Amino acid sequence: MAEGKQLRSFVEVGRDSHFPIQNLPFGVFRRRGATEPPRPAVAIGDFALDLAAVSDAGLFDGPLLAGSACFRQETLNMFLAMGRPAWKEARATLQRILAADEPVLRDNEALRKKCLVPMSDIEMLLPIMVGDYTDFFCSVHHARNCGFIFRGPQTLVNPNWFHLPIGYHGRASSVIISGTDIIRPRGQGHPIGDAQPYFGPSKKLDFELEMAAIVGPGNELGKPIDINDAEEHIFGLVVMNDWSARDIQAWESMPLGPFLGKSFSTTVSPWIVTMDALKPFACDAPKQEPEPLPYLAEKNHVNYDIPLEVWIKSMEQSEPSIVTKSNFKHLYWTLTQQLAHHTVNGCNLRPGDMFATGTLSGPEPESLGCLLELTWNGQKEISVGNSTRKFLEDGDEVILTACCKGEEYNVGFGICTGKVLPALP
Amino acid sequence: MAEGKQLRSFVEVGRDSHFPIQNLPFGVFRRRGATEPPRPAVAIGDFALDLAAVSDAGLFDGPLLAGSACFRQETLNMFLAMGRPAWKEARATLQRILAADEPVLRDNEALRKKCLVPMSDIEMLLPIMVGDYTDFFCSVHHARNCGFIFRGPQTLVNPNWFHLPIGYHGRASSVIISGTDIIRPRGQGHPIGDAQPYFGPSKKLDFELEMAAIVGPGNELGKPIDINDAEEHIFGLVVMNDWSARDIQAWESMPLGPFLGKSFSTTVSPWIVTMDALKPFACDAPKQEPEPLPYLAEKNHVNYDIPLEVWIKSMEQSEPSIVTKSNFKHLYWTLTQQLAHHTVNGCNLRPGDMFATGTLSGPEPESLGCLLELTWNGQKEISVGNSTRKFLEDGDEVILTACCKGEEYNVGFGICTGKVLPALP
Repeated sequence: MAEGKQLRSFVEVGRDSHFPIQNLPFGVFRRRGATEPPRPAVAIGDFALDLAAVSDAGLFDGPLLAGSACFRQETLNMFLAMGRPAWKEARATLQRILAADEPVLRDNEALRKKCLVPMSDIEMLLPIMVGDYTDFFCSVHHARNCGFIFRGPQTLVNPNWFHLPIGYHGRASSVIISGTDIIRPRGQGHPIGDAQPYFGPSKKLDFELEMAAIVGPGNELGKPIDINDAEEHIFGLVVMNDWSARDIQAWESMPLGPFLGKSFSTTVSPWIVTMDALKPFACDAPKQEPEPLPYLAEKNHVNYDIPLEVWIKSMEQSEPSIVTKSNFKHLYWTLTQQLAHHTVNGCNLRPGDMFATGTLSGPEPESLGCLLELTWNGQKEISVGNSTRKFLEDGDEVILTACCKGEEYNVGFGICTGKVLPALP
Repeated sequence: MAEGKQLRSFVEVGRDSHFPIQNLPFGVFRRRGATEPPRPAVAIGDFALDLAAVSDAGLFDGPLLAGSACFRQETLNMFLAMGRPAWKEARATLQRILAADEPVLRDNEALRKKCLVPMSDIEMLLPIMVGDYTDFFCSVHHARNCGFIFRGPQTLVNPNWFHLPIGYHGRASSVIISGTDIIRPRGQGHPIGDAQPYFGPSKKLDFELEMAAIVGPGNELGKPIDINDAEEHIFGLVVMNDWSARDIQAWESMPLGPFLGKSFSTTVSPWIVTMDALKPFACDAPKQEPEPLPYLAEKNHVNYDIPLEVWIKSMEQSEPSIVTKSNFKHLYWTLTQQLAHHTVNGCNLRPGDMFATGTLSGPEPESLGCLLELTWNGQKEISVGNSTRKFLEDGDEVILTACCKGEEYNVGFGICTGKVLPALP
């Protein structure tokens, strides 16, 4: 079988598509207007390949998947729990049946129509049942900028930051799929003088450009995952918008961290791009100084070269405008370090858990991952099309995208989008 | 039918029992050594009343429960989602069939044996699938003491504390049932001088005396719950031990709050005592100054008079020793205020979610709810039987208990217990 850039599908895939046969990200869809239960799929070009249909046709003929009900579920959690051997078997089978020289689907029109559903005919759903969602804080540029904005230039980054991946528990119930509208949250902000605190619609609504890892097999409570085994527990990545109400967050966070400033909505992109598909884009992770403690010292210290962009489309504009360009490779603490740290105290992860990177700001002024940084907490404005912004306004649609650019093909994530609706009266 | 203290069951219930017919808390059990799936139950005296068996016998004959599968589930989540009308119907049916003057169970030995299972023959399981678990920080005494210990006498309590119930997201995966052992967590503590941070077994393992509310019907994302409707969304309470590794917590918490210092285990008592059973023990909640914002101002501002105790049994002792006595009524922000605040930004709650009070310290030195406060962060020792403690040692069993004392009967929670095992090598 052809490998890498030689691999080609009988499904037509444009050069700029995010979803060539080398990618095959996993999601869950429903046909528009249909009442049937959601089904797992992989993306190929402009189609979703229905994995329940592929399974029904007996095409998963490998030892782990032949008898499995994992693709007849409404989420990917069962498949995630099966681990990398099953993921590799699925990928190999799917790359084979989609290959240009393989007739099984290509030459069987009825089966092909059953299995390949045009993306224009479907809606995407949250592909996992999220047990717990954790948010890390692993871009040093973001940590430095937040330190400066909130505490001044003396103590940019807390001394713990370079010793461990700082993180906090997020809210799992409000993790939503790309395309869902965001209602501007109401809440408390700082009082001015002796007055009561402000209460009303957030005046500092922001996006945060992040990526989130999806956990495969978990670990038993009390049994940490070794740093050098951590990659076996990570299925893949999605793009994530950690919507943030900066005024609520600033008032509530002392001393226990962010709560309602974040928990109103967290948007994820629908297609989970597997670590196997990202492998060709692996790159060295930043050198760490001081050296990490042994439980965080890893043999394979890698990041991935994933260019990221954020676009905003206001109600007045017909086209979105780009507001930042960053890259996943700026991450200081790697995904595997985050996972090993998360479990070192015995905390158990479960299949479908999510852990996010924190805002992925880069080193340049034009690579900052949120408006808090881009406008320095509203002290200046950025231009968005013909207009300007300090924070998000009602009607703004925020579009995050991520795409690895190879010489012959892309491995992309599609988009992660959401539109801001006015607060409740 | 008899009400309140006149109500009596044909099941013999001792005067000191936590579980008279006036209580009837809900849990989930399995017969010891049995392979059958777990079943919902209520506690009555020394028995668990098997609700699947009661349901199979057709004894739930009210309009909401007659045709329902809610008691054939392995958790209470479906029953929780049904809301107060179903909870009231269940309570009325169960108080009727357990009453001294009702023959349906009393005089049918075969059915009685099927339905009433001696507690000595069963093990209790986590009664809910916890979607999200939130931990508040609502005892002013605890907040003051923590402020003093960590920041000195100048700024005891942050200014936001009296304006909103401070809280953070906890870890749902590591919520465990009473009786489960706790493995001492490993993690990082503060470096001394220029050295690397400490890494190893926590040297400051602590308990926290808390109670947690169990959410019934939830709310849709974006639709806050009004403060005066909040009680319709709260099913009942459990006792909770929010185990804490103070050295890990102190080092990691800036700026995003507690994470691995808490996420290794959180123990809950097995029987959920309903708000209906607690009603006779309602009492005025503390007057709030400054007055809460309108979204937190409630018509019915009540706490509950629930005496709480913590006991420790070390390996050397045959009997536990009491280390603190507190009361739920010290809570500054009520459960309904916590819930209304939690959703005011649009955050959605789901049936089976848990939100805890934070450490329930009282005003007196002997009513402090954790060792951090009782030993002032290890600056002094407290006596535990013939021995002393600054923090927990391996082999220590920590037993939390809560019991409302009425004139004629108790409404109790049983115990919430866990034993500390040594850290992994």
